[in-house]
Amino acid sequence: MLLEPYSVIVFDAFGTLFDVHSVSVKAEKLFPGRGNELSLLWRQKQVEYSWLRAMSRQYKPFWTVTSDALDYSLKRLNLRLEGAVDELMQAYETLSPFEETSAVIDELRNQGYRLGILTNGNNEMISTVLKNAGLSSSFEQVLTSDKVQTFKTVDAIYELVGSAFAIDRSKVLFVSSNAWDAAAATWFGFDAFWINRLNLPFESLDVEPRFEGESLTDLLRF
Amino acid sequence: MLLEPYSVIVFDAFGTLFDVHSVSVKAEKLFPGRGNELSLLWRQKQVEYSWLRAMSRQYKPFWTVTSDALDYSLKRLNLRLEGAVDELMQAYETLSPFEETSAVIDELRNQGYRLGILTNGNNEMISTVLKNAGLSSSFEQVLTSDKVQTFKTVDAIYELVGSAFAIDRSKVLFVSSNAWDAAAATWFGFDAFWINRLNLPFESLDVEPRFEGESLTDLLRF
Repeated sequence: MLLEPYSVIVFDAFGTLFDVHSVSVKAEKLFPGRGNELSLLWRQKQVEYSWLRAMSRQYKPFWTVTSDALDYSLKRLNLRLEGAVDELMQAYETLSPFEETSAVIDELRNQGYRLGILTNGNNEMISTVLKNAGLSSSFEQVLTSDKVQTFKTVDAIYELVGSAFAIDRSKVLFVSSNAWDAAAATWFGFDAFWINRLNLPFESLDVEPRFEGESLTDLLRF
Repeated sequence: MLLEPYSVIVFDAFGTLFDVHSVSVKAEKLFPGRGNELSLLWRQKQVEYSWLRAMSRQYKPFWTVTSDALDYSLKRLNLRLEGAVDELMQAYETLSPFEETSAVIDELRNQGYRLGILTNGNNEMISTVLKNAGLSSSFEQVLTSDKVQTFKTVDAIYELVGSAFAIDRSKVLFVSSNAWDAAAATWFGFDAFWINRLNLPFESLDVEPRFEGESLTDLLRF
């Protein structure tokens, strides 16, 4: 079986286990006709702000980075509504897992893999999201930006995996639906499994993920 | 006069002195109806790739980063045409300055300011662009990513200014039309002048540029 060389499988959280665009339902209710646009810009700015803060060593918890990104996106799109920020941030706390997430995680655990999460999210944020999704006890390790006070794609955050699992990076399968995350993880030395849900080309960064699938279910298909 | 505390004024190049969307004219000729979309995605990916390479210490010259970004953008938008990459990269070598660029630079030089460029571009790339725009001898210092082998917003690249001009960073006025660059320069310790050509809100990064204008001409208006 293809996954045999790996005893440890580590997942990105936002966009990989949890559908960050599930907030677009709430966004569409608040701003009819603009929900998808808001949701996409919010996500883009959230990622951009984490990169800028990582590069310039201006860490702050991902929850507030996420709130800042929403604040900017609403201003940029000229959307105003009392209480909208609170409602949308609340939606982010209760992000939906993808439909296959729970079944795939359960199956991999049953097969004996050691599972982890490596996320830009801060401890409280990821705990809340996991709890609301009923996944609190599914992962041996939940590794977050809090500990290293920086974000992906700085090496320090990927290094958390080897330390926590006491394993060499080459034995780690890293699963992400974010192409940039899969690229950087490969640069770092993990084997990456890119979940390419939208059938996009991979980023042109002189590196390719070792594996590619359409959903988490493809982890079980080899 | 407002600019008096500053003896040194340093400009970002791409997007600030030169209009990166001037390539969209060529793009529109090659791909009718899709030129603007291609031009915007190309620019976004160019910046993203520079950030990812800075964070993950995967430097390569900005010219090839720019070419990679174009390669991805064409694939992503499903645009195919023999020779398109060469034609568009050539357009990038002959980027148009903004209409006011030359006059403002000349006036500031006449007023005795020491002028510099600080760019993600590599030496050859920025030399070619300056030459094609007739600006080769307008700047006392042209500082590039080549020397530090990284990109904005890592401190090392902003540090080039203090070294080259032998001046404390607090005496430097840094001019950029990229809000993220103005924010990071402010984090670093420069006073930033944000050229907000598109009347956008500033990024929500807990920092504000010291000055804001609509075009380079506003540098002369105080």
